[in-house]
Amino acid sequence: MPKIVDHDKQRQRVAEAAIRVIRKSGFEQASVRNIAQEAGLSAGSMRHYFSTQAELFAFCMNIFRERIEKRIERMTFRGPILQELKHLILQFLPLDEERTMEMEVWLSFNAKALIHPELRVLSNEMHNALYRASKFVIETLVERRLGSPGLEPEIETEKLYALIDGLAIHQIMQPGRLDVERIEFMIDDHLNMLCRSL
Amino acid sequence: MPKIVDHDKQRQRVAEAAIRVIRKSGFEQASVRNIAQEAGLSAGSMRHYFSTQAELFAFCMNIFRERIEKRIERMTFRGPILQELKHLILQFLPLDEERTMEMEVWLSFNAKALIHPELRVLSNEMHNALYRASKFVIETLVERRLGSPGLEPEIETEKLYALIDGLAIHQIMQPGRLDVERIEFMIDDHLNMLCRSL
Repeated sequence: MPKIVDHDKQRQRVAEAAIRVIRKSGFEQASVRNIAQEAGLSAGSMRHYFSTQAELFAFCMNIFRERIEKRIERMTFRGPILQELKHLILQFLPLDEERTMEMEVWLSFNAKALIHPELRVLSNEMHNALYRASKFVIETLVERRLGSPGLEPEIETEKLYALIDGLAIHQIMQPGRLDVERIEFMIDDHLNMLCRSL
Repeated sequence: MPKIVDHDKQRQRVAEAAIRVIRKSGFEQASVRNIAQEAGLSAGSMRHYFSTQAELFAFCMNIFRERIEKRIERMTFRGPILQELKHLILQFLPLDEERTMEMEVWLSFNAKALIHPELRVLSNEMHNALYRASKFVIETLVERRLGSPGLEPEIETEKLYALIDGLAIHQIMQPGRLDVERIEFMIDDHLNMLCRSL
């Protein structure tokens, strides 16, 4: 069924064009007309691929979520566990070009979701993915008896979840203020702190 | 000089109208026309108060910064120090209507600053205010010999700075997920952790 394949490919092409427009000029400029032009398609053809702008933006955010999930799926967790957990956390931080681009658009998307409630579900799904990763880190420390005996899993999950998102937003808004080594050191320090006797 | 007073008052009026428009409909709708309408002024008169949109947005963000500074200036630091430091941190979290409104608009402003480099300076100034507050918290713990001997001030300042911004963004994006007591408990827990022997 070549037609369906084409259709999926075109949706991907439109979404990638939308991401480029949003990153370059913000959601304000992400009109059907501008996205069509960026994708090299006619404005009229756009409705074949996405019936609403919200549907298109949802598709874009899903691309990011799938990329993060794929990066995590590739992890084997066979190495030293604290290193592996750090590596998991780093997937949510904008430390290379791909993740920086994702998170810049993601920040704009969050601002947009504040105004458009229909986008909130998707924003929450992405936040929940980070929350689950934070929970996994803390639970792994507890299960492997590495976490300090006084560690409160729920509180530490919330703190890690906030710490990662805060680091991500600082890295996006003030790029270069902290270098990658510094950020890795902070994550190491935090994981080590969780393992020390409190 | 009643004319100057009027001018300042009108600038404030325009800025407050802009904040309401941004909060309700996002920056996309924050056109001169819409802001003038919200302020009850003619679109033509707007240029008397702000020569560019960037100048208007800068004025709006300064209103927020001044509010935070005023809230902090009112603090006496005469009570139990950990309580006072927690109270200082809470000024940066959206735990009441005023701070929620400020931080929703602030999040949108950050997204806009990603696209418009001329707004970056202001975004950085606000981030620096939170960084300085985080530094003050950690330095106070060290000066009063409450911080654990192994505490690394720079790393802990960065972590606290990220933790507060992460909590703020989660509270904005997922309101009600954590209640005020829970957030206060997390801050208490974090401050206590910094004071324990590592």
